[in-house]
Amino acid sequence: MIEGTAPDSADYRAFYRDRRVMITGGLGFIGSALAHQLVDLGARVLIVDSLIPDYGGNLFNVADIEARVRVNIADIRQGSTMNHLVGDQEVIFNLAGQVSHIDSMRDPYTDLEINCRAQLSILEACRRYNPSAKVVFAGTRQVYGRPDSLPVTERHLVKPTDVNGINKAAGEYYHLVYNDVFGVRACSLRLTNVYGPRQLIKHNRQGFIAWFIRLALEDREIQIYGDGSQLRDFVFVDDAADAFLRAGASDASNGLVFNVGGLEPIAHRSLVDLLVSIAGTGRYQCIEWPPEKKAIDIGDFYADSSLIQRTLGWRPVTALREGLERTLSFYRAYAEHYLPATPSQVSTR
Amino acid sequence: MIEGTAPDSADYRAFYRDRRVMITGGLGFIGSALAHQLVDLGARVLIVDSLIPDYGGNLFNVADIEARVRVNIADIRQGSTMNHLVGDQEVIFNLAGQVSHIDSMRDPYTDLEINCRAQLSILEACRRYNPSAKVVFAGTRQVYGRPDSLPVTERHLVKPTDVNGINKAAGEYYHLVYNDVFGVRACSLRLTNVYGPRQLIKHNRQGFIAWFIRLALEDREIQIYGDGSQLRDFVFVDDAADAFLRAGASDASNGLVFNVGGLEPIAHRSLVDLLVSIAGTGRYQCIEWPPEKKAIDIGDFYADSSLIQRTLGWRPVTALREGLERTLSFYRAYAEHYLPATPSQVSTR
Repeated sequence: MIEGTAPDSADYRAFYRDRRVMITGGLGFIGSALAHQLVDLGARVLIVDSLIPDYGGNLFNVADIEARVRVNIADIRQGSTMNHLVGDQEVIFNLAGQVSHIDSMRDPYTDLEINCRAQLSILEACRRYNPSAKVVFAGTRQVYGRPDSLPVTERHLVKPTDVNGINKAAGEYYHLVYNDVFGVRACSLRLTNVYGPRQLIKHNRQGFIAWFIRLALEDREIQIYGDGSQLRDFVFVDDAADAFLRAGASDASNGLVFNVGGLEPIAHRSLVDLLVSIAGTGRYQCIEWPPEKKAIDIGDFYADSSLIQRTLGWRPVTALREGLERTLSFYRAYAEHYLPATPSQVSTR
Repeated sequence: MIEGTAPDSADYRAFYRDRRVMITGGLGFIGSALAHQLVDLGARVLIVDSLIPDYGGNLFNVADIEARVRVNIADIRQGSTMNHLVGDQEVIFNLAGQVSHIDSMRDPYTDLEINCRAQLSILEACRRYNPSAKVVFAGTRQVYGRPDSLPVTERHLVKPTDVNGINKAAGEYYHLVYNDVFGVRACSLRLTNVYGPRQLIKHNRQGFIAWFIRLALEDREIQIYGDGSQLRDFVFVDDAADAFLRAGASDASNGLVFNVGGLEPIAHRSLVDLLVSIAGTGRYQCIEWPPEKKAIDIGDFYADSSLIQRTLGWRPVTALREGLERTLSFYRAYAEHYLPATPSQVSTR
């Protein structure tokens, strides 16, 4: 068991001093944000990432903390590698995954291998070689599918509308079962729409917000499906990383799932209005829903995050305007590390 | 689309005359019961079964209808085989699966391959080669885990307590997503405890009722965990098969999941009392819960089957006493086809 778990939220950051911590998907968007916070807290950080092209891993994401983390390039699908890497890690932040809804409908098998089978590999590695590790899984609001009621609590039915959502649900359930049956302490954070610096903006298959940000930066037109009235909530990446830190430091999270949502819902159209006005570039237009997108759309969604607030003291703190400002200035400074090298590599799928 | 779908429950049996029907897992317990009803209704039945030892497939299960069905031995994990076999089937009853909770916790990967990956293969085969097929999936009450409220309706949270339950949930969700997104009409029946002739009784890793029946037949002692007060509902296999027939014949089932439960719940102890009294052999004793069984036990469970009654006109009709009588006399007549050849093969795990 981890000593010094921190029900008192003032202590959860101190908990990580000298702590051995592994981040799967640690070169990605949220994983690298977490790595930045962890090195500042004095943790000994091992980043595991496959750097599969188009998946979001990017060495530049940790360039400024390169000397303070250990990076191990590996694929979580490789079971014997994971058996070794879980080693004596005290906390495992398990963020590696295939995250594109669209890709999962084109190639459901790869999504299955990464989001189901590899999750089992990580948990089996813990069960056999490091049963005292704490595992925090990056879940998703996608498992709820199209909401029956708003805001969505953790009591809402799980009914995914795409293969990615199904496999992420299975990956999450494995964590809970390994917690309950094998004593590998684990929990899941169901993230809503996370945004911020270091997100993949090379193509548009990993969610719309990063893509909108890129279009605004490039002074291009943003296309909003339908009338733009659909509501979503957005979490700034540093707030999301803070939720992981709290969940990893406390045994109160064991066996539970928590929504990690934004401050308040906003309509797509208002979001884009705000984005364009902050950027000073870009414009938008509302267009008809493409049928294949409409088929897996979930309508309005915003999460009730009161469970994690009550249990772990977490709440989002970054206002959307501030978060967008920080995001835009990050990409303005480092655009070349996030955009394709040549126009021919631009995906418009 | 299937012509002549049968919202009128009087017609659903006539629907199957000359119908091309495939049953995966068709040499198993429920699959073979379904095959018997289908040949009597004049359907052209293709049985697909892997005959993996210990999984429940048994050629004797269709020995009496051998000349009236086509049997193709194949593993649903073999994608190109499935691409061929789905061919021009009009209804696919998709019952092939790994069904042991216990095995799934020892070897989660095999359970994943069969209950997740192979389900995707079947659905991908339909999507690409036979999009007008109707698929009826054999789901399970296991997806609910430990109930929060009784009786359990389809609105109850999905929260499996073992790997098998998780993978069966994913397999079910795939069917619903392929229905909604790709138009491969599909539905799922969440079966509670099914019992009856032709069930595997060679070992005790596929649920307790068949094992209890075997012990009673052999005049051995039945061990009930705890005080025997836990409630369950039981469905006679011919009733379960009737639910499949109704679901396969009606488009009202598309995209839905239905509980398929028993007439009324009964305590384990009362069930065993009844079983022993009908058999005239066997006895029982209550023992302490083994910890590894307790960890995945779900307490009381019984299903609310009103949705399938309202939608498809199905309800269970076979009383437990009658069902047990028919089951016991079946095994008394054909024991040698269901018991291990030598005592050394008896599993007592």
